[in-house]
Amino acid sequence: MPLGEFDIISTYFQKQNKRKDVVVGIGDDCAVLSPPVGKNLLVSTDTLNLHQHFFADTPAYDVGYKSVAVSLSDMAAMGGEPAWLLLSLTLPDVDELWLESFAQGLFACLDVHDIALVGGNLTKGPLAITTEILGFGDKMLTRANAKVNDAIYVTGTLGEGGLALALLKNEIAEDNFAIAEINCIKQRLFRPAVRLNEAKYLKQIAHAAIDISDGLLADLQHILDASHVGATIYADKLPLSASLQKVPLPLKTQIALTGGDDYELCFTLPSAQVSQLAHIEQHTKSQFTCIGNIEQQLGLRVITKDGELLSLEKLGYKHFL
Amino acid sequence: MPLGEFDIISTYFQKQNKRKDVVVGIGDDCAVLSPPVGKNLLVSTDTLNLHQHFFADTPAYDVGYKSVAVSLSDMAAMGGEPAWLLLSLTLPDVDELWLESFAQGLFACLDVHDIALVGGNLTKGPLAITTEILGFGDKMLTRANAKVNDAIYVTGTLGEGGLALALLKNEIAEDNFAIAEINCIKQRLFRPAVRLNEAKYLKQIAHAAIDISDGLLADLQHILDASHVGATIYADKLPLSASLQKVPLPLKTQIALTGGDDYELCFTLPSAQVSQLAHIEQHTKSQFTCIGNIEQQLGLRVITKDGELLSLEKLGYKHFL
Repeated sequence: MPLGEFDIISTYFQKQNKRKDVVVGIGDDCAVLSPPVGKNLLVSTDTLNLHQHFFADTPAYDVGYKSVAVSLSDMAAMGGEPAWLLLSLTLPDVDELWLESFAQGLFACLDVHDIALVGGNLTKGPLAITTEILGFGDKMLTRANAKVNDAIYVTGTLGEGGLALALLKNEIAEDNFAIAEINCIKQRLFRPAVRLNEAKYLKQIAHAAIDISDGLLADLQHILDASHVGATIYADKLPLSASLQKVPLPLKTQIALTGGDDYELCFTLPSAQVSQLAHIEQHTKSQFTCIGNIEQQLGLRVITKDGELLSLEKLGYKHFL
Repeated sequence: MPLGEFDIISTYFQKQNKRKDVVVGIGDDCAVLSPPVGKNLLVSTDTLNLHQHFFADTPAYDVGYKSVAVSLSDMAAMGGEPAWLLLSLTLPDVDELWLESFAQGLFACLDVHDIALVGGNLTKGPLAITTEILGFGDKMLTRANAKVNDAIYVTGTLGEGGLALALLKNEIAEDNFAIAEINCIKQRLFRPAVRLNEAKYLKQIAHAAIDISDGLLADLQHILDASHVGATIYADKLPLSASLQKVPLPLKTQIALTGGDDYELCFTLPSAQVSQLAHIEQHTKSQFTCIGNIEQQLGLRVITKDGELLSLEKLGYKHFL
């Protein structure tokens, strides 16, 4: 007989955690939590759907890991400190091997950041995972505070999530990559680095930030819209990984500009703070790259090394277009 | 050209609200909220899936309304005060008529209770709605505090959600009901009364509570499990609506005991507090019915008017069985 709803919860998801701010965890109508005094509460939610955000052959561990990581990335983009997660899991049937592996990936990502799974919901239907992250913040990084003359930075490298997707969809041949390299690229798609640690320091000096989930151009545009400013990006400044460097122009630039699933941060910085950045870079063992500037002239311009203005017809991934 | 993700959000979901505790609402990576000092934070999540929780011909308004109501019912069951909602909406395509009606139903239920929609997520995939409700509580009603000799009460009437489902699935013929009556019964399924007001008072005197979403027996069993006690229920005491009274025995009893989607509260009360209940009943214009007792002997027994012990083979709806 397959496991029932409550057996699934107790077997795979009801794990002890050490957080003292969980008054009532999994198993009642609501989780009861004790937020710290004097901080704001930050909340965000994300959904991963089969075929849209992962595939039938994506390892369940990776689906579990990523379902947490995408939520954490939103928390990082605000400079928040994640604390608690709710999980809504919709399953077509009970596959215990899949569930075990999914839960392992989920808790692997939760445990790294000392986050407690405090509740959730289990329903029958097409495979989908919705996570809701809750955390705290004092000084916050929003999208709305970018200023003219700010430098635009990104963390890490861009486009590897998009490269992984292109490889999975056979839009780019795997011939140019070693098998180990392909595995690394795909891992980047499903187990993204989350820039929580960097954000802890960046929130002290940056003006605005967003995490890059829909592609650099689409996400930077949100900062521009919210801050009522424009920007110029220099295509040759984009930090590409060694793997993406192997892809010919102009495709590699296009992937770096519009490929989703990077989960790096894009942030804007007043020039007076640039010197602070090197310290943070060293302290967090990170890489921050200046890729352009915030300008008064509205709109988003991308300029090549030769000074050519790129056409931005394809402004990144948009749902429902 | 169909609306894009951000157009959908701004057109249908970005509504002004009057809550002063929303620091940053829809439109950034996280919502930023200001919880009251000295209260616990209560959170819960629920998912409604097409074919499982509603049907292709269910009016979008009702789907929107119910997606909030089911979350509020969890808040009521803990005696909490709801404040903020996150919405994760998965759509197969952009149907503006559906969206407009869905949003109207959603806000209709939110506005009654002064709840702000503070964020969410929109993805492409099989139609599904996940809501996350956040609220506050001081004295809380959990499932774990039922005591031997407590009386077991329910609010309102039982089984009308189950009756509506049985009518929709043609398991019960519509012949015995007038068309207006059938509409009322179906409305009960999709626009359930939420017992938030009753819970505000009941939390002062009740020992334990749960909302009835999976059927009385299944949900009462959660109280028994969490409180390490047993119970006897008297079948002839079950409060049935006039509509359900028309269904012959034993079917009407079975529906009242195991039909889901009632969203009434089941609570346990020490005998010393029974006199208080009449005041609350009058003040909240509600109906509370004693249906049985908490006992030391573990397990759940249902006894008919003739003293016969009913077989509980079908212990309510369970997912994945």
